[in-house]
This record gives sequence, structure tokens and C-alpha cells, in this order.
Amino acid sequence: MAIDPRTPQQIRADIRSGKLSGPTAGLGQNCVQANLAVLPKAQAYDFLLFCQRNPKPCPLIEVCDAGCAEPRAVAPGADLRTDISGYRIYQNGSLTAEVRDVRPYWRDDLVAFLIGCSFTFEWALLDAGIRLWHIEQGKGVAMYRTSIPCRSAGAFQGPMVVSMRPIAARDVAKAVTASARFPGAHGAPVHVGDPATIGIADLDRPDYGDRQQFRPGDVPVFWACGVTPQAVALASRLPFMITHSPGHMFLTDVPNAALAAL
Amino acid sequence: MAIDPRTPQQIRADIRSGKLSGPTAGLGQNCVQANLAVLPKAQAYDFLLFCQRNPKPCPLIEVCDAGCAEPRAVAPGADLRTDISGYRIYQNGSLTAEVRDVRPYWRDDLVAFLIGCSFTFEWALLDAGIRLWHIEQGKGVAMYRTSIPCRSAGAFQGPMVVSMRPIAARDVAKAVTASARFPGAHGAPVHVGDPATIGIADLDRPDYGDRQQFRPGDVPVFWACGVTPQAVALASRLPFMITHSPGHMFLTDVPNAALAAL
Repeated sequence: MAIDPRTPQQIRADIRSGKLSGPTAGLGQNCVQANLAVLPKAQAYDFLLFCQRNPKPCPLIEVCDAGCAEPRAVAPGADLRTDISGYRIYQNGSLTAEVRDVRPYWRDDLVAFLIGCSFTFEWALLDAGIRLWHIEQGKGVAMYRTSIPCRSAGAFQGPMVVSMRPIAARDVAKAVTASARFPGAHGAPVHVGDPATIGIADLDRPDYGDRQQFRPGDVPVFWACGVTPQAVALASRLPFMITHSPGHMFLTDVPNAALAAL
Repeated sequence: MAIDPRTPQQIRADIRSGKLSGPTAGLGQNCVQANLAVLPKAQAYDFLLFCQRNPKPCPLIEVCDAGCAEPRAVAPGADLRTDISGYRIYQNGSLTAEVRDVRPYWRDDLVAFLIGCSFTFEWALLDAGIRLWHIEQGKGVAMYRTSIPCRSAGAFQGPMVVSMRPIAARDVAKAVTASARFPGAHGAPVHVGDPATIGIADLDRPDYGDRQQFRPGDVPVFWACGVTPQAVALASRLPFMITHSPGHMFLTDVPNAALAAL
């Protein structure tokens, strides 16, 4: 695919002005993309604690002050209410709206969490010469609920969700070391090999995303997934929550490569 | 010095029973030692946020549930109220007592934070063959307030405190890579070389700890220091806070080496 030369600042401006919509994979000159979760302050302490206790599925990139929609450390000048190309509004655990602008929903007591995303370590895998089937085929990755329990915090509890990529056996070690450099983007895999060990009955039936295809000699490699905190937050039936729409991530100004050295 | 063969569990039991007092350097079979900070729940969110925003000076090892004194992830069965050989009690920012048992001060709304400590990366430096003057001489490390601002969170704000070790020029790169493996214990240095650049006027006058001696060719190397969160918390004049006494750390069951692979 052709490389899009726009900077993250330009992409965010184009999203804000309505010029750009759609998923963000491949955009933003190899800068860190992030998951968004916005919760009322009343639930923010337990959610922050949940992220601290489960850093692999919930690597925090930034936590804004209550009421503040500018992630000052990773994208100064940005507005988290307008600079993402799709949002979901949840009330009491149910999806109630899908919108392009959350300013009408914004409140002074809302806390915005930005959580690292697999795009960063996928970039590192590709850069290391590792083939990723779903990228070559233009598909989504496969995601599964596992039997690995997260450490709970207040009302937030549940199993870890993982993403799975078929990796050539000779590249498994390289996939581990390349992704381990990025703890801010899920880090090293949580499991390599037999899916039954972590409670996955059938690799061909992912709970989210697309079924993957294995080439001869490919090994299933599992990474902690940013769907985990969203799934856990939804299961706790929060009175109110805003997230990005799947695939519509927030683009920060931080180069992926810099995340390994923060 | 002779190696003490007691496990962290045995050390904690000996501290609890009064058999053991004094500093903990060198004890516990190369397991992670941690700084303790205990705050009321009312201030815990901002403190947790401060740690999240400043992971180099404030690497969180564990955050307990409110009222709970057992750090279940890193030392199951331990009691943070009795298993440290010295505690300090602060009220409105002033030291009001130094005790061996904080059960009389414990409350249901207290949140205990365990923060990584330089012993872990010093062990990694020694293991890599790097000489540390203060350990050879039985002294403390030198610590300085810097002009590096921490990112603030609520009432918590202030400059980063760093520790400094003179390192042979040929070992500086090795000191960086050896400590970088342990983000849970301050990670890689925050500065190498000229102290004036980070606002330190005179290396011979540390703000805390002991003056260090340089051998010819030694370079000053600066790491973020766990004194930072305590200094910041005290400066904010919290109504109530408990910390460990300097040098009297909490011993976890986690081997230092394992901290690099969590």
C-alpha cells in the first residue's frame, strides 16, 4: 500500500475537520496509536489500579486530568473529543451511540485513559522481517478470551483477552525479543504454542476479529490485548463510558521507536 | 561481607518477631526490596496518577487494596504493618514518630504503595562486573534534588530526586544496558555527565546520603530515585502518611532477575 505522508498532527486535524474518516492502521508515520477509554472520576481510581495491576493487557500511555481532553505528554494541542474518527458511547454496559464527536457527551468529571496498541509491536515485528499473515491479507487479527485471570481492582475483574498471530517457528524468538522492547504496547507474548493451555478451545473460532491461516511450521503466538480493559469495564456495567470505535485509534506524536526508550 | 542465607519470608518473620532490626541492604537472597508509602484513600488516586506519570522515579511494584496490608502479588502472607524494621509516621508533612510496628496507626482507608528500589539495579551492575564505590566503602549513595520537573498530579508536584554513582568511563554503556532491563527499579539512568545540566551545583554536597569519591576517569551517572515520591508527598503536606525508615526496606518474594521479565 502507498505510504501516507501526513504527520499525526495533520491526521488529527483532518479527522477533526471531517476530511478523514475510517480506520487508522498504517497512518501517522509510525507514531504510537492508542486505545481510548473515558470513565467518570468515581470509577477512575479502580480502573487506574486495574491497569497498574495488569500492565500487559493495559499499558498506560497517558492518563489525563479529570475534565481535560488534551493528552499533554503524548499529543499537546490535541482534543480527545474530536480527534478520533469514531467513538462509542456506553451506558450501564450497553452501546447506546456511535458518533464522530463526543463534545456533547463531555463532562468535567470524565477521565481519559490512553492505552498502548498492538500496531506498535506489529511495526517492530515487520521491521524485524517477520511476516504477519493478517497484514499481508488485509484482515484483522484474531482475538480470544482466555482462562488467564486478570488481577482484579474494585469492580473491575475478568479474564485476559489475547491476540494471536501465526509466526514461523524460526521467527518465534525474534518475535519475542522484538515485541519485548515495547512494554508500553503489550510487550512480549504471554503465551507461545498450545492454545488449550490458556483456555482456548478452537483457534478457528476467535471471539473477536478474523480467523487466521497457518502456513506449515507456523506456531500460534499470543499477546495480551487492549480489548481486555474495555471488556472488563463493560462487564462491570459502568454507568457511563466512552471508547474509540474498533480500529479507529488515537494518533499520538510519539514515534513507535521512542516508546522503547521512554 | 558474609552472605546471609535467610529467605525473604524468614527475614520478614524475624523482623516481625523483633529478632532482626536495622537496614536491609544485602539481605533476602537477591529478592526485590521496595520503598513503602501509605496514604489515605482520599489522596491515593492523585498519588497513583503521579506514579503513573513519573515511572522512572516511582516504579510501582504493588498497590494494595484500601485497608489491606498484605501485598498479595509480591509477598503473599506478609503484613506491611509489622514486617519492616523501621517506619516513619508523618502528620501534615511533619515527622511525628519513628516506630517498629504501625498496627496502632492502621486505618481501613489506608492504601499501601510499594515502589521499586535501587538495590535491584545495583545488584545488576555488580553482577555485570561494575565497581560501585559506595558499596565497596560501606557508605550510602549520594542523592540530589534536580531541576528536572516531575509531571504533576493533583497536589503532588516537585522536582525529581536522583541518585549518583561514579562509574568508570569504559563501564558507562554497560551500566545503562544493565539497569535498563529493570524499569521496575528506576531503569536506565536519566542523565550521564555534567551535573550542572540538571541543576546540581556541587557534586560534593548531596542533598541526601553520602558524598562519593571519584577515581580518575570516572563519570557521574544519575538515576531517578525513590526518594522523589516521598519528597513530593511530604511537600504536599498530606494529613497522614506512613513510610519505611531510610534503608529499612520491605523484602518481597520476587527475585531481582525475575523483575526484568514480568
